[in-house]
Amino acid sequence: MDIHDYMQTLGRQARAASRVLATASTADKNAALVAMAAAIREQTGELLAANARDLDEARAAGLEAALIDRLTLTAKGIEAMAEGLEQVAGLPDPIGEITDVKRRPSGIQVGKMRVPLGVIGIIYEARPNVTADAAALCLKSGNAAILRGGKEALHCNQAIAQCVRTGLAAAGLPETSVQVVETTDRAAVGHLITMPEFVDVIVPRGGKGLIERISKEARVPVIKHLDGNCHVYIDRDADVAKVVPIVENAKTQRYGTCNTAESLLVAREVAPRLLPEIGRMLATKGVEMRGCEQSLAILRAAGIAADKLRAASEQDWSEEYLAPVIAVKVVADLDEAIAHINTYSSGHTEAIVTENYTSAMRFLREVDSSSVMVNASTRFADGFEYGLGAEIGISTDKIHARGPVGLDGLTSQKWIVFGNGEIRG
Amino acid sequence: MDIHDYMQTLGRQARAASRVLATASTADKNAALVAMAAAIREQTGELLAANARDLDEARAAGLEAALIDRLTLTAKGIEAMAEGLEQVAGLPDPIGEITDVKRRPSGIQVGKMRVPLGVIGIIYEARPNVTADAAALCLKSGNAAILRGGKEALHCNQAIAQCVRTGLAAAGLPETSVQVVETTDRAAVGHLITMPEFVDVIVPRGGKGLIERISKEARVPVIKHLDGNCHVYIDRDADVAKVVPIVENAKTQRYGTCNTAESLLVAREVAPRLLPEIGRMLATKGVEMRGCEQSLAILRAAGIAADKLRAASEQDWSEEYLAPVIAVKVVADLDEAIAHINTYSSGHTEAIVTENYTSAMRFLREVDSSSVMVNASTRFADGFEYGLGAEIGISTDKIHARGPVGLDGLTSQKWIVFGNGEIRG
Repeated sequence: MDIHDYMQTLGRQARAASRVLATASTADKNAALVAMAAAIREQTGELLAANARDLDEARAAGLEAALIDRLTLTAKGIEAMAEGLEQVAGLPDPIGEITDVKRRPSGIQVGKMRVPLGVIGIIYEARPNVTADAAALCLKSGNAAILRGGKEALHCNQAIAQCVRTGLAAAGLPETSVQVVETTDRAAVGHLITMPEFVDVIVPRGGKGLIERISKEARVPVIKHLDGNCHVYIDRDADVAKVVPIVENAKTQRYGTCNTAESLLVAREVAPRLLPEIGRMLATKGVEMRGCEQSLAILRAAGIAADKLRAASEQDWSEEYLAPVIAVKVVADLDEAIAHINTYSSGHTEAIVTENYTSAMRFLREVDSSSVMVNASTRFADGFEYGLGAEIGISTDKIHARGPVGLDGLTSQKWIVFGNGEIRG
Repeated sequence: MDIHDYMQTLGRQARAASRVLATASTADKNAALVAMAAAIREQTGELLAANARDLDEARAAGLEAALIDRLTLTAKGIEAMAEGLEQVAGLPDPIGEITDVKRRPSGIQVGKMRVPLGVIGIIYEARPNVTADAAALCLKSGNAAILRGGKEALHCNQAIAQCVRTGLAAAGLPETSVQVVETTDRAAVGHLITMPEFVDVIVPRGGKGLIERISKEARVPVIKHLDGNCHVYIDRDADVAKVVPIVENAKTQRYGTCNTAESLLVAREVAPRLLPEIGRMLATKGVEMRGCEQSLAILRAAGIAADKLRAASEQDWSEEYLAPVIAVKVVADLDEAIAHINTYSSGHTEAIVTENYTSAMRFLREVDSSSVMVNASTRFADGFEYGLGAEIGISTDKIHARGPVGLDGLTSQKWIVFGNGEIRG
């Protein structure tokens, strides 16, 4: 197979399908999603068998346990995938929505209509459920999709793709609306991200290495999600009752998520009073604290075990640990906190704990991250928690989509004009 | 001068200035704009002298008349530039605006806050007024700007830049908020579009060649405006009284603008009745018609002079003439009109003339262009006509900004969360 020709063919087919999807009715799109869910449930045995083949090959290739874990599909996981498709069917259809219509002095009425982007390329790693999730979000938002999953999940992804096609066909929509790249040749990715004539945007879902490489080489826009070095700042005027619950939730509810706090900043005036209690909670949970000199002194004096304390290096201020580790720094005031965050943060999510109105509003305004919070856990930075109903990813970019990206992030708005014979003077 | 080091320095300074501008008060930004306008008025003599130097060099280099025309600055043009700055001062400040706040089941309230993009790189050609316009729009939207004008306008651009700096200094804002590249070395552009660490978006303003080259080589997002092959479609159910005025205005009000109609489609059923009148109007205005077989037959039979008629080639359906020429095609119906537009249009602006509700709504929904109109002239596709107050350009992209781009197009929205101690369950 000539990989260039193959990808061009997928691209051409996706572009043609996107024209049909752009004007497909909500009922047809929803019917396809529901039929996909039914096919996935029906094919549970086949999906598990395909997954078993992938897992055998992965074990034979000596892949690490974490990857095997992400690759593994269970009957429960398959049911969750089907339910996910039905949930997307239940979301409001964003396409065709008319907003912001205003009458102009010329007499015309100008507004906006939400439309699909066209063709979305999704590049992801081991998790097979992304195949169904991404297909659903692209379809509901009227976009055609080309999906390129990790080579470890090839058999499973192809089996899921078959269910997706069954669903599309049942609703009378083109089967090429969602295409899964059926080659493990790495060159396929290189082609996918350099076909602006066929692909409108790339959404990479995976590790930082994958995303950096794609951003560097892409010739089409990329909605990218780099790392999440999220901060919690305990202000001088923090409500003591809110401090420990927020730090605990932000850091320890889950260690491996991008909206987990990785850095804690504490205002100097309240550090001696608040850090000991925070430190005891973190130590109890088994979290290692990498502190500045001042914070270490306070934590040591409070009797935190030495094996939970370590001096922070410059590198620690930028680190996304994804582990029971947190960087801790005492800062002079709000100004230093904001400056520190805007220097070291990855621009994902930051929270301030304060009762001071002006400090809260300044933090919201001046911190340059995709989500900025007052008195809430950073763990809320999530499409479902924000009410988007679904999430294709979290963007750390500023262009087009920022923060959690739902169906709207896969759409654009065109201008529409309602006239009555007006001409320009 | 090492051009790489020079551009890196501009970039670093712009990034630093952008941090200040992001939180600058509306009053300070407006004061800077008003002081720039005053400086430009005061320096009218110096600006004219600098322009005279540019014009001398341009003439000596044998530049074509159209370019010399675009390069020429008059006292009236300088006053218009100053007034433009004052108008931008009068626009509402988009930055910091909080919208869409909703309470979620968890108790948090989630909304959006409008923020600047950061640093905008503007690359343009001969027109010196772009220097002042672009500086104003970037400043008002809280962004730092690096401006790279055409080498033909170097002296004039530097003189305008001096007025811009005077205005910034008067308001206590960093003079590096707006920097004009002071070298004519073409390598400067190559560096400007490949510094993602310092530049957040590039807005090229100029010919198609410039924009295509920049899009191809840029390593940062580009808000680009390619050509405008705009269509007017006369539907079977068109109101006869609206047909000729709309075609006349769309095609002949100005020939050189991107929202001028370049293609006319007429439904077969009404072509024999409506095309003759349209043809006579166009011929009277001196517009050449490049027609399909059917339209030529009707136009000839109507007595349109042979020197105004020509057979259209395939190429004509995609052409942006920017001249008194229009492509004319008889189409079977609305379906063929939409298919033709979605095949040949550049995705800028299209209009339908119809009294039929369903045809109007289908045209709005199914035509994939940045502006789609019913019963109005394509000439309305313009930031001022749409009520944006100002326009940095017209985007033919779908990502981030589509159609006329005003201040909002130079901004992004971050998520904000108002909490009261909530943690995620």
